[in-house]
Amino acid sequence: MHEWLDSYEARDWQTTGEGTVRYALVGLGWWTTDVALPAIEGSDLGETTVLVSGSAAKAERIASEHGVEHGTDYDGFHDGDHEGAYDAVYVGTPNATHLEFVESAAELGKPVICEKPMEATVERAERMVEACESAGVPLMVAYRMQTDPAVRRARELVESGFLGEPVSVYGNNSQPLLEMIPNEDQWRLDPDLTGYGTSVMDLGIYSINTTRFLLRRDPIAVQSRLSSVGEPFDDVPDERSSFLLALEDDVHMVSTASQNGYEDTRLQLTGTEGRIELRPAFHGECSLHLARDDRSVSIEHDAFGAEEEMREEFDYFADRVLTGAEIHPDGNHGLTDMRIVRAIHRAGERDASVRLRE
Amino acid sequence: MHEWLDSYEARDWQTTGEGTVRYALVGLGWWTTDVALPAIEGSDLGETTVLVSGSAAKAERIASEHGVEHGTDYDGFHDGDHEGAYDAVYVGTPNATHLEFVESAAELGKPVICEKPMEATVERAERMVEACESAGVPLMVAYRMQTDPAVRRARELVESGFLGEPVSVYGNNSQPLLEMIPNEDQWRLDPDLTGYGTSVMDLGIYSINTTRFLLRRDPIAVQSRLSSVGEPFDDVPDERSSFLLALEDDVHMVSTASQNGYEDTRLQLTGTEGRIELRPAFHGECSLHLARDDRSVSIEHDAFGAEEEMREEFDYFADRVLTGAEIHPDGNHGLTDMRIVRAIHRAGERDASVRLRE
Repeated sequence: MHEWLDSYEARDWQTTGEGTVRYALVGLGWWTTDVALPAIEGSDLGETTVLVSGSAAKAERIASEHGVEHGTDYDGFHDGDHEGAYDAVYVGTPNATHLEFVESAAELGKPVICEKPMEATVERAERMVEACESAGVPLMVAYRMQTDPAVRRARELVESGFLGEPVSVYGNNSQPLLEMIPNEDQWRLDPDLTGYGTSVMDLGIYSINTTRFLLRRDPIAVQSRLSSVGEPFDDVPDERSSFLLALEDDVHMVSTASQNGYEDTRLQLTGTEGRIELRPAFHGECSLHLARDDRSVSIEHDAFGAEEEMREEFDYFADRVLTGAEIHPDGNHGLTDMRIVRAIHRAGERDASVRLRE
Repeated sequence: MHEWLDSYEARDWQTTGEGTVRYALVGLGWWTTDVALPAIEGSDLGETTVLVSGSAAKAERIASEHGVEHGTDYDGFHDGDHEGAYDAVYVGTPNATHLEFVESAAELGKPVICEKPMEATVERAERMVEACESAGVPLMVAYRMQTDPAVRRARELVESGFLGEPVSVYGNNSQPLLEMIPNEDQWRLDPDLTGYGTSVMDLGIYSINTTRFLLRRDPIAVQSRLSSVGEPFDDVPDERSSFLLALEDDVHMVSTASQNGYEDTRLQLTGTEGRIELRPAFHGECSLHLARDDRSVSIEHDAFGAEEEMREEFDYFADRVLTGAEIHPDGNHGLTDMRIVRAIHRAGERDASVRLRE
């Protein structure tokens, strides 16, 4: 097993240690304030200078609590308030509102890191890509798993042949949404704000994107089952979802997600020669469980000298912004996920297989 | 966690400790000689008195090596050779030949324990059930997971509400068949002998049947993907398989199986309140990994005072034969699996969802 584990380099993506990207954070929900803001605070190359919320008072209050210079409301952001005070924009609002903020950022010439899923629909995500491309502004979709050191190490193992030929993949991502956010009117259950649905858009996307990243293979066709059994989930089709993806090279992927289940995140890759499991997988403490021949080993997340995963993501983005280098999880990469999610919803509605354009 | 783990009773099914069932074992492949024969030898209520093979010389040789009284060939078995020397018949031949031996056993009035899958096709499995019913002979299908003490304990946990409401299930069963049996002409790859295919019939059936047993819920509709990518698998459709089952009460099940993959067996049940994992699941060393609230615990197979699992199965069968009590995994139970496997193959061929008769 040792020969497989000796070559790891943390932050293999890093090209500069100098410079600072000043961020405007748009959308002050718990993820932005409790996760993104501290992650930037702890990052090497980032600093938060502007907070943007629906309410200017809320933005200013949170700004002063966190020692951030400026706060403004959404209209102010669109009007260019404090545009000299920030270099890049993080968009962490509900899915269906991402586009308007990315469009304004693009008009202001600011690089953007936008939360996933990119938008409520494929069409709106396409408009987002067009807006950034025509303004010549870099767009990163915030797939934090791609800069998680354990996930990057797993990808190196796949590339070096640890699995042999990949055969099958299983992903699960379930959480008790209404225990975490005890509000039945939240945006993740509102089709006008969430888009196609809730468990695939919000949770299943982790299994999909992390698998695409690890295996460098995309789905060709999807089958699925979607169902909502509890009353708070009446307006979305997928309190629970399960889907079966045919990946390139005939790799079989199955996955489940639930917004009303015991918390569990895992991704398992089985090959002809070995197995790689990420368990837990998706909540910032990814551990690897490896097996090959008759040996197995577990590597806890701490062993990777792992920084908080959003910090890695923000430093990666800042590194790219500062040097002008290409961003990997870009808008087109995110668009592929949007098309996969749409196909999963179509397959569920039609109770039939849906092919993705190759 | 303790309150969930205090009530286990080993062999909760046992009703008698007296008597002996003398077996004729039909089909002397490695499973019968290396697993079934020693299991009966170690059992409380069983004894092997007759061995039956395609070759009388082979049957007699193995009989003398193991101190078994009689050996005969298939024709001899059909003709009633040594019928006074055995009370019951174990059928461990290739799938497509089960029926003829069960029919002869039924004619001879001998109770039967037949390996799974029952037969090559639903129609032949139906004939098997009819043969036993019209002869008034008990028929058990050899689902050894159902008498595995860890699996029985997991079922008690499900029944007592450990999971809350079941939400999703994942099963995987993969093995490197051609490393285990290095022969490309083996019956598991021959459609005339295996039936619908290989990975669902031989491996996926474990995930399906164990889930039915644990949750007491059957599938209503199936979707699937089947593929054979390597040349030795050209004659069967499913070197690899993945399937998505809609179980009763809207439980979502996804599953993968491969005859050309790294050995891995697991079954994971996720509910609204907890998680039960069997890992490994299907090869005689089933361990439980439980999580609920913020606690988790692993119980290795040894902790169940677990007997070799085939011994449990044979003693269960003998207990039922000796007392005349009902057998649970009976022919009709096995028929349901055959219909599920056929539906999985049809869904794969049609690339569309297939409903099972309810």
